[in-house]
Amino acid sequence: MVKQLHLAVMEEARNRWDQLTKPPGSLGKLEEIGIRLAGIQGTVFPSVERRAVVVMCGDHGVTAEGVSAFPSEVTGLMMQNFAGGKAGVNVLARQMGADVHVVDVGSRCEVEIPGVLRKKIKSGTDNLAVGPAMTRDEALAALEVGRETARNLSADGVQVIALGEMGIGNTTPSSAIAAVLTGHPLAELVGRGTGIDENTLSLKGQVIQRALDVNQPNPQDALDVLAKVGGLEIAGLAGVVLGAAEAGTAVLVDGVIAAAAALTAYRMEPAVGAYLFASHLSQEPAHRVMLAAMELSPLLQLEMRLGEGTGAVLAMPLLEAATRLVREMATFADLGL
Amino acid sequence: MVKQLHLAVMEEARNRWDQLTKPPGSLGKLEEIGIRLAGIQGTVFPSVERRAVVVMCGDHGVTAEGVSAFPSEVTGLMMQNFAGGKAGVNVLARQMGADVHVVDVGSRCEVEIPGVLRKKIKSGTDNLAVGPAMTRDEALAALEVGRETARNLSADGVQVIALGEMGIGNTTPSSAIAAVLTGHPLAELVGRGTGIDENTLSLKGQVIQRALDVNQPNPQDALDVLAKVGGLEIAGLAGVVLGAAEAGTAVLVDGVIAAAAALTAYRMEPAVGAYLFASHLSQEPAHRVMLAAMELSPLLQLEMRLGEGTGAVLAMPLLEAATRLVREMATFADLGL
Repeated sequence: MVKQLHLAVMEEARNRWDQLTKPPGSLGKLEEIGIRLAGIQGTVFPSVERRAVVVMCGDHGVTAEGVSAFPSEVTGLMMQNFAGGKAGVNVLARQMGADVHVVDVGSRCEVEIPGVLRKKIKSGTDNLAVGPAMTRDEALAALEVGRETARNLSADGVQVIALGEMGIGNTTPSSAIAAVLTGHPLAELVGRGTGIDENTLSLKGQVIQRALDVNQPNPQDALDVLAKVGGLEIAGLAGVVLGAAEAGTAVLVDGVIAAAAALTAYRMEPAVGAYLFASHLSQEPAHRVMLAAMELSPLLQLEMRLGEGTGAVLAMPLLEAATRLVREMATFADLGL
Repeated sequence: MVKQLHLAVMEEARNRWDQLTKPPGSLGKLEEIGIRLAGIQGTVFPSVERRAVVVMCGDHGVTAEGVSAFPSEVTGLMMQNFAGGKAGVNVLARQMGADVHVVDVGSRCEVEIPGVLRKKIKSGTDNLAVGPAMTRDEALAALEVGRETARNLSADGVQVIALGEMGIGNTTPSSAIAAVLTGHPLAELVGRGTGIDENTLSLKGQVIQRALDVNQPNPQDALDVLAKVGGLEIAGLAGVVLGAAEAGTAVLVDGVIAAAAALTAYRMEPAVGAYLFASHLSQEPAHRVMLAAMELSPLLQLEMRLGEGTGAVLAMPLLEAATRLVREMATFADLGL
């Protein structure tokens, strides 16, 4: 069960922000962040000192259709890179003081990688262009992996969890989820992922259309959508969102894949929305549409399209700034006004 | 004299970014930042460890027209707040590891404030709605204060300087400068500053129009524009930009006032543009227009309108991220690819 935010504490926090030595509202989204964190943690002086990024990894049967610029083997290589601490997300997490948790919930990599939590539900999804990516039970099992991960981190004191992922081909299921859950036309949602050319982009659109035609996912049933046209790491991240919100922990959404996961969780349980914070606006066109569907507004505009949780981790200092400002700024009364 | 960036080093840096374990270009603006910092510092592995924010303070004769939500006395009170370390910019600078340097280049405050560098050229500008805000010599003197400040910081090893300011009424001269130097219609440039109502907004537009009619600033002569419709702290910051660029130091632009200063410096010496980095996009409409005139693109969208350098300081971790990624990420060769 996801608890409502502490409304009285949010009101108290709003009053506090209005007493700080600045024109009312002039710190913009930082004030909103501070007030919402207050509501989540039940204190006017919240903290995001304890931070983590969860990188869910999975592979995708749909890569057989040639929709990605990279082969599926890269998923395993990047898992080794994460474990070695030398991928983009590791570098940024070190800078921001966040722990990196890499979870293999569904890659094709058969090698044990020390430092990667092995929770494989299945070795990659089936090709969603010819049938369902997963069974409903597989999707539920992947959700549970994420939920348990978030629950453990929260129990350990983590106050904000960034959503990261790795999975060659995973902008394809993310765009499919966006199309079904937002109702936007597919043509406005399909992007170049890690860098495909014009022809592959056109093919990718056709493949997703085929997936929707073949599977007929039910927009009223987010689990059906997730199982039929989603991915194991997307299900895992949706589980992280549910588990974090259930434990009262804030969640930083990353790019288009993390947004697809967050939107899936949000449709399953709308109360999680209060725990979600957008980070950056990715280059993938479906990202903006899904953030808007959750009434989230991105903080960073960096034209990034890397995934891994890199954008979410970059937003951590902004959440920290909100917690510091409300704690350390003088009030008008302090200045004798 | 402002030196050209090291083009060969930038090419080397671009190659390095392309070898890192990520799709080419997928770190978006962070890659551009890293490459430009490399060109500024002459090394593929630049650093922004040493950071400062300069808060130039000044008052404005035009407040007599009733264009601001706050009285001029607040400039002095906020200078005390900066000196006490409890204003918004102080809190954020502590978080980001930046030193705060407060310079009184033209406030009406007659009290010595320990911790504030007193470099007063004049006690506030004259009312630009009835005549020039400053003489050309006063504008030059204020520019020199900023130039010297930046030169000293650079000599001390500072690698990035954020532009901050305090001055009740200073969105009025900033919008006037924007109108003259960009040629955009005034109606698209005037905003609510710290929070004026609809009537005051309309008055503010009329006052600025009067200032332009009375003073006839010459758009081809940025110093003329600065003197006639600018401000002392704006001139000070324009000097910081010139001094920093001359010393080979990167500059983080803040909101609309800092952008007016940067644009003035840029028109005086276009070579400074290579040293400028945008930070956030403010709520003031003239901000976007002036950033575009310098071909700068904001990194943060926080709906802020506080000034003081708060937005610029918030962008410091993004510059740091660029320097860390290029240094710490694995290359494809490291992964055996």
